[in-house]
Amino acid sequence: PANGHRFMANTCAPYLKENQIVILNPGRTGGALEFYHTLKKQGVEKFPFIAEAQTFIYASRSIGPCHAKIFSIKNSVPLATIPAYWIPGVLKIIKRAFPQFVPGDNIFKTSFNNIGAIFHPALTVLNAAWIEASHGDFEYYIQGASLSVSKVLETMDKERLEVAAALGIKAMSAKNWLYTAYSASGKNLHEAIQANPGYLGIKAPDRLNHRYIDEDVPMSLVPLTSIGDMLKVETPTIKFIINLASIMRGKDFLKEGRTVESLGIQGMSIKDIRMLAVSGEI
Amino acid sequence: PANGHRFMANTCAPYLKENQIVILNPGRTGGALEFYHTLKKQGVEKFPFIAEAQTFIYASRSIGPCHAKIFSIKNSVPLATIPAYWIPGVLKIIKRAFPQFVPGDNIFKTSFNNIGAIFHPALTVLNAAWIEASHGDFEYYIQGASLSVSKVLETMDKERLEVAAALGIKAMSAKNWLYTAYSASGKNLHEAIQANPGYLGIKAPDRLNHRYIDEDVPMSLVPLTSIGDMLKVETPTIKFIINLASIMRGKDFLKEGRTVESLGIQGMSIKDIRMLAVSGEI
Repeated sequence: PANGHRFMANTCAPYLKENQIVILNPGRTGGALEFYHTLKKQGVEKFPFIAEAQTFIYASRSIGPCHAKIFSIKNSVPLATIPAYWIPGVLKIIKRAFPQFVPGDNIFKTSFNNIGAIFHPALTVLNAAWIEASHGDFEYYIQGASLSVSKVLETMDKERLEVAAALGIKAMSAKNWLYTAYSASGKNLHEAIQANPGYLGIKAPDRLNHRYIDEDVPMSLVPLTSIGDMLKVETPTIKFIINLASIMRGKDFLKEGRTVESLGIQGMSIKDIRMLAVSGEI
Repeated sequence: PANGHRFMANTCAPYLKENQIVILNPGRTGGALEFYHTLKKQGVEKFPFIAEAQTFIYASRSIGPCHAKIFSIKNSVPLATIPAYWIPGVLKIIKRAFPQFVPGDNIFKTSFNNIGAIFHPALTVLNAAWIEASHGDFEYYIQGASLSVSKVLETMDKERLEVAAALGIKAMSAKNWLYTAYSASGKNLHEAIQANPGYLGIKAPDRLNHRYIDEDVPMSLVPLTSIGDMLKVETPTIKFIINLASIMRGKDFLKEGRTVESLGIQGMSIKDIRMLAVSGEI
C-alpha cells in the first residue's frame, strides 16, 4: 500500500539506477512526488523513471498472508511520470507487460483523480458502527452512501476539485467519474451512486483497521488538505473526516500522512510546482 | 422543543408578570439565559421566575399531532433558576404539581449536564446511513455506539467538561452519568454504554430530520462551542459534528443556534458570567 512508498524509496535509494522504472501502482495522492523527494533527500543524483498509476490496475482482494485474488484487470488506467515528458517512453517499455496503462497528463492529474480519497475514508468512518456491528455485512455503496452521507461525500469532492483548480488542474468530479467509469448518472452524487449496478453486491469492509482508512486517510486526504492549506483553499470537510478517522483509530493521521513537506513542495509557487511535474526540476 | 424558547420568550414578553414562573422543561444548554436575555432585549423590566430543567421530566414519544405517549416520569430532575437563590422558592411552589424536580446548583450546572448534547447528535450523524437504510431499525445505543463511535463521543465529552471547567463548573462525565443514572459502569464510555441494560431495545430515530439533530445541534452543541470559543477552550470534535450535521441537513446550525450573543454573555468575564447565574445581574 501507499503507506510503504516512503519506506521503499528510502530502502531502494542506494540501489536504483537511472535506466530503471519505478511504478507506484497506485500512487494514491502524491506518490511519485513523495518517492522523488525521498530519493533526493537520500542524496540520489541520477534518478530512475518514477511513475504513478491513478488507480490500482487490479480489482482484487487480499485473501490471506501472501495471497491475493484478482477478480479482474481494469481496461485502462492513466499513468504519469515525473517529469511528464517521460510518459510516452515509459509506456512504450512497459506496454508488453501492462497494456492497460494509458498516458495520464501529469502526476497532479493522476494524484487528484485518485477517487478513493472521496469514496473510501468518509464512507467507512460514517458507517463505523454499522461496520463494527455487522462486520461489514451490508451494501457498502448502495446502503452506506445514503442521501445524507452522499451530501458529505459531495462536499468533500468539491473541496478536492477546488484544491486541484488552484494548481490549474481540472480534476474529474466523483459524479462524472461514475459516469465515465460505469455510465452511471444522476442529478447529484447520491443518485449517480444508486444508479450504478456495478456497486450491487459490494459489501463494506469488515473492520475499521482497514486500508480504506489506514492507507487512504494519510496518503490521499492528508496531502489534499496539506496542499489546500498551502494554496489557501479551505478543505474543512476533508479535515473533519481526517480527524474523525484519527479519533476512531487512535492515530495522528495528519502527522503520519503526506504533506507538502514530505512531497518536497513546501513554500513553492504554483508555477514552480507545475514546472516540477512537467520538467522534473524548477 | 428548545428551538422554540427564543420565539416563546419574544411572544410572551408583553404578558409575563414578575410573580409568574417559567419552566423550560428541559432547557437544553443555555435555555434560561437565552430566555432571560430575550426578555431583556424586548425591554422587559420586571422579570418572571425563569427556571430550566436539566433534562425532560418525561420519558415519552410523540405519537402524532398533539399526541404524546408518556412511558414513565423520571424520579429526580435538577432544576435551576436565574438567579440561583430563587431555586428553593420556585421548587416550593411547584412541588405539589411536580415533586420530581430537585434543586440544581445553578443554570450552568443544568446546562452543562445536558447529556443529550453528547448522546444525540453524534450518534445520529455517525449512523446516518444505517438510519436511512433501515429507518432506525437497530439498537441505537448498543449497536450505534460501537467501539469507534464511542471514542468520538468520549472525545466530545471531554471537550464539554473542559468548557464547563473553564467557567468553574464541575460537570459530570457521560461515563459517570451512566453510573449515576443507571448503575452502568466500565473502564471507558463504550463499556459503560454496553453495560447498561436500560438501553436494550431502544431503537434509533427513523429519520435524520429529528430533534436529535435539529434541536440538539443548535441548542446543545452550538452553545458549548460558542462558550468554548469565547473562553479559548478548543472544541474541535464538537465542531466536526455540528458541521457534519449541517451538511447532512442542509442547514447552517452554527448560525441558527444559541451563541454567546443570543445568551447575552458575549465579551463578559468569567466572574461576571458566574455572578449573572448567581445573582441575576452583574
